[in-house]
Amino acid sequence: MSDKIRLSVAELHTKVQELLVDKGFSFEQADGIADTITAAERDGCLSHGVFRIPFYLAALKNEDANAQAIPSVSVNETSSVVHVDGHNGFCPAALKAGFEPVMDKARTRGIAALAIHNVYNIAALWPEVEHLAQRGFVAFAFTAANAYVAPAGGTKPLFGTNPMAFGWPRGDKPPMVFDQASSVCARGEIQLMKNAGESLPDGAAIDKDGHPTNDPEAALAGAQLPFGQHKGSSIALMIELLAGALIGDFFSYQSSEKDVHNIGAPFGGEFLMVIDPSHAAAPGTADRHIEHAEELFTRLLAQEGTRLPSGRRFAAREKSLNEGVLVSDFSDF
Amino acid sequence: MSDKIRLSVAELHTKVQELLVDKGFSFEQADGIADTITAAERDGCLSHGVFRIPFYLAALKNEDANAQAIPSVSVNETSSVVHVDGHNGFCPAALKAGFEPVMDKARTRGIAALAIHNVYNIAALWPEVEHLAQRGFVAFAFTAANAYVAPAGGTKPLFGTNPMAFGWPRGDKPPMVFDQASSVCARGEIQLMKNAGESLPDGAAIDKDGHPTNDPEAALAGAQLPFGQHKGSSIALMIELLAGALIGDFFSYQSSEKDVHNIGAPFGGEFLMVIDPSHAAAPGTADRHIEHAEELFTRLLAQEGTRLPSGRRFAAREKSLNEGVLVSDFSDF
Repeated sequence: MSDKIRLSVAELHTKVQELLVDKGFSFEQADGIADTITAAERDGCLSHGVFRIPFYLAALKNEDANAQAIPSVSVNETSSVVHVDGHNGFCPAALKAGFEPVMDKARTRGIAALAIHNVYNIAALWPEVEHLAQRGFVAFAFTAANAYVAPAGGTKPLFGTNPMAFGWPRGDKPPMVFDQASSVCARGEIQLMKNAGESLPDGAAIDKDGHPTNDPEAALAGAQLPFGQHKGSSIALMIELLAGALIGDFFSYQSSEKDVHNIGAPFGGEFLMVIDPSHAAAPGTADRHIEHAEELFTRLLAQEGTRLPSGRRFAAREKSLNEGVLVSDFSDF
Repeated sequence: MSDKIRLSVAELHTKVQELLVDKGFSFEQADGIADTITAAERDGCLSHGVFRIPFYLAALKNEDANAQAIPSVSVNETSSVVHVDGHNGFCPAALKAGFEPVMDKARTRGIAALAIHNVYNIAALWPEVEHLAQRGFVAFAFTAANAYVAPAGGTKPLFGTNPMAFGWPRGDKPPMVFDQASSVCARGEIQLMKNAGESLPDGAAIDKDGHPTNDPEAALAGAQLPFGQHKGSSIALMIELLAGALIGDFFSYQSSEKDVHNIGAPFGGEFLMVIDPSHAAAPGTADRHIEHAEELFTRLLAQEGTRLPSGRRFAAREKSLNEGVLVSDFSDF
């Protein structure tokens, strides 16, 4: 492994973007990817930080991956579902193209959806729900992956690690955001544990013969398991349906079939739902969703040992913005 | 306990409805409640069947519970969020009032929401998502409960058992539906285990001092735990926000505070999202969401040991429609 270097968050963004442009990405594609990689390093989510750059570069080996893609947005006057075709580029640029139209729809109609089609999605989902929640919206995001996870009761990979993310606005405070895989572990976490020589928690995976394993390498060759047994499996199935069949994109097993070079860069769609809370309070009653939620957060945090899902990330962010981030030197990627 | 009697599903519905009218419920309220109790017995979900009748009757002891409530619907031409005020009645009648308007909105706009306000909600959520999915929609439902569940890391009840339900249409087949508590066990399951002298699974609950317990009675006096540790806790929190702060209704702890007679009939709101899949495929592409999803279901069921979330329920339904259901005699409730 290469030496670690300390960079400010802005410097990291510039360096990632320059590297990607140098490797053949358009400015728009590189800018979006640099946003998500920088945000992950800044927030201490290392499995989606600099560690991911090789996945973006490797994705270009897929014959149809398009590092120069210009996403196209379809907005229909009647419908509240906004579509963005990523044209085989990467998800961040497609999301950027869809944010304003879907927020416009949500403001007028109260609830809207954003369907992102035909993208490679190697990023975390919290950046998009955070973006929307910072602007006052309640937001959900769902995407499939490659087939890594056995359904409850089964032994063979079928589902992706299928994350769902949720964002809740908190006025002047950073939003409450969670982004969680529907498997016990995220794929990137297992790859990091393998590199670090660490063991998986019990119940996270089975080997290729269907036996429980704590060995990251055996898990990567076998199948991951859903969190919370059949309940996490139901959520993984729901996410396949939303990001796959509903919007006419790939299921995880279809993404795996397409990934003939075994690169691990999932291809398919992402589905988001966006709610403007000003439409959601009962007619004639005051809209006090933000202060009401704070009462719940206060009660939750009053219990010793608890935290808000996004608390650790925002603490890491504050530190990174003050001190910069320490990352592997990736100039030779 | 009283003797068991065998009834046809239709007979059970009539008897439950007559009993409720006799106890002071209006026809509309009794009809909605009889629907949900009958559906639960028919589908083998005993914790939401006849077992629940005493909860409905006890709820009338709450000073403001209104067995004669006539739900009022608010539809705004611009907004896709339909509101129903249940006026302190029970949820089933309010849902019935909201179904057509929210489906109309979803058909036109692609995505719509239904906010049910001011209801006692003692029922399962799968009947409403099944109703919507049978009509071709993708549907989500969320509701809070009373404060029974400790947040991840904590030891005191804060969240409800907070179910979420999801429904997916399958054309001529019964829809794919799941309805799962964000706790390891549903509250009603623990009450049934207590009655049957059974033990709770590990990780389901802590006693009032915060120690793990398998004793249903100690669990009911202590706190239940979320499924999948912090991930289920995040989902429980999301559901509090959606069914509570977003639509201006009660959090679970507020419902508990209101329940001064400790009846266990949660009061508050329910939030549903409804999608018309015909809006969700990429523009210019064929909408083949149903056949596409069947390909996934076929692959899932090809793995030995798996099942679709709703499979067991539909098998029980077929049996009940042929043979009737065996229920406790509830004529002296």
